[in-house]
Amino acid sequence: MEKVRRVERVVALTKLLVDRPHHLFSLGYFSELFGAAKSTISEDILTIKQALQSFGLGTLETVSGAAGGVRYLPQQEAAAINGLLTGLAEQLKSADRIIPGGFLYMSDILFNSQLMLQIGEVFMTRFQHLAPDCVMTVETKGIPLAFATARAFNVPLVIVRRGSKVTEGPAVSINYVTGSSRRIQTMSLAKRAVPAGARVLIIDDFMKAGGTARGLVDLAQEVGAQVVGTGVLVATAEPQEKLVEDYVALLILHAVDEHTKKTDIRPALV
Amino acid sequence: MEKVRRVERVVALTKLLVDRPHHLFSLGYFSELFGAAKSTISEDILTIKQALQSFGLGTLETVSGAAGGVRYLPQQEAAAINGLLTGLAEQLKSADRIIPGGFLYMSDILFNSQLMLQIGEVFMTRFQHLAPDCVMTVETKGIPLAFATARAFNVPLVIVRRGSKVTEGPAVSINYVTGSSRRIQTMSLAKRAVPAGARVLIIDDFMKAGGTARGLVDLAQEVGAQVVGTGVLVATAEPQEKLVEDYVALLILHAVDEHTKKTDIRPALV
Repeated sequence: MEKVRRVERVVALTKLLVDRPHHLFSLGYFSELFGAAKSTISEDILTIKQALQSFGLGTLETVSGAAGGVRYLPQQEAAAINGLLTGLAEQLKSADRIIPGGFLYMSDILFNSQLMLQIGEVFMTRFQHLAPDCVMTVETKGIPLAFATARAFNVPLVIVRRGSKVTEGPAVSINYVTGSSRRIQTMSLAKRAVPAGARVLIIDDFMKAGGTARGLVDLAQEVGAQVVGTGVLVATAEPQEKLVEDYVALLILHAVDEHTKKTDIRPALV
Repeated sequence: MEKVRRVERVVALTKLLVDRPHHLFSLGYFSELFGAAKSTISEDILTIKQALQSFGLGTLETVSGAAGGVRYLPQQEAAAINGLLTGLAEQLKSADRIIPGGFLYMSDILFNSQLMLQIGEVFMTRFQHLAPDCVMTVETKGIPLAFATARAFNVPLVIVRRGSKVTEGPAVSINYVTGSSRRIQTMSLAKRAVPAGARVLIIDDFMKAGGTARGLVDLAQEVGAQVVGTGVLVATAEPQEKLVEDYVALLILHAVDEHTKKTDIRPALV
């Protein structure tokens, strides 16, 4: 009987931990939930950690001390990331994705929730050292990916609105110039959405010249926050000089040829 | 040694299953991944199923036959749902959420990814019998919740754009009248986003008169799809008559009093 109970406890612990990446659970919480000694829970945690690691499914981090506990870090291994991005690049090369104007139809991928949650964990792995306090994006297509990244970090998602239609109390607006088409646009952020001093990670689906990302950096500064990193799913190879200095792109779009229906997009392997 | 390996396999299986709700894994896939007989995997699955159920963490469904396998269903128990909604209502009553005009600031909740993933599982539990093929919402604030619901069902998310700015190939636009302010607005949907005949579940953050939801129903019909259900996080008690007939609201907003700073919002308990 004891053996059955242990494996059941391990299943439940695994489920609770992996469901909430970066959420710190106290051993006392688990001890009460399962009616087991903290030392028993500690042994279970060690077992789970070893199992997750040996299958490349992330790891557990134990934080000691009175405010300590254990949390799940959904770190992805390089081989898994490379496999994922290579597959994604292949998918995006499909001729029927090319839209008049030389655009790529990507919404089915951007709005695939389980895939985006995986990519969010890729960004978590890449940006973990930056310890962001929130993930910021601008509506609309990048929201699922930013949401997934915020989930992997267990930090709030901040959505900047286009235009000045914020109805959420005092807001800050800026004008910015889109890098490629050189149009002036407005974007706004509710002041209470970002605490002053916050470390902001920008996540978006696509970057061409980087005008939007540049606008987000300026907007963050306007509310007293600090952008610590920028990640995009796809960046174009041209222009090489973007309006933001540091960014991580998972896929590089080199060319879309409307006539031959060929798309040259490559994974940025790690 | 055998014992250790079994518990490690169970941990990895649990993680893989709960990470992708409604995704059907074949026993052959797991058998190859873990180098174990299908009968062994079947035993593990039974153990995991019992453990998840006994802790109220959802269940596993086994599908027999050649195209069969096993999948995780993140069903929430009534007590857990009621606890979640009661806590949420309490949070929303906070006086500092009242924005001039009698609106409630809800973005911190709507953009809390781990909370939204939970609410998405509540909607999955409520709408499971409808077997939707996709989850549809309109930008912007309902996107995280719709994303989370799409994840729980493992179906595509469809985001309808306001205005006619769709740059994703052929699109369908409709005009609709917002139920409360009686303004005429436009919304658009890329045709390729929804297959004809699809069973559509509409998810949104807020419903007052239901004009937006009504517009989504019309838009879905326009592309040959069929709305099978509508779920919103918050619906107002007034007007009682909404422009859509059937909907599920998790919280009912009865009144926001700007003077007394009191908000009357109640969970719709199951």
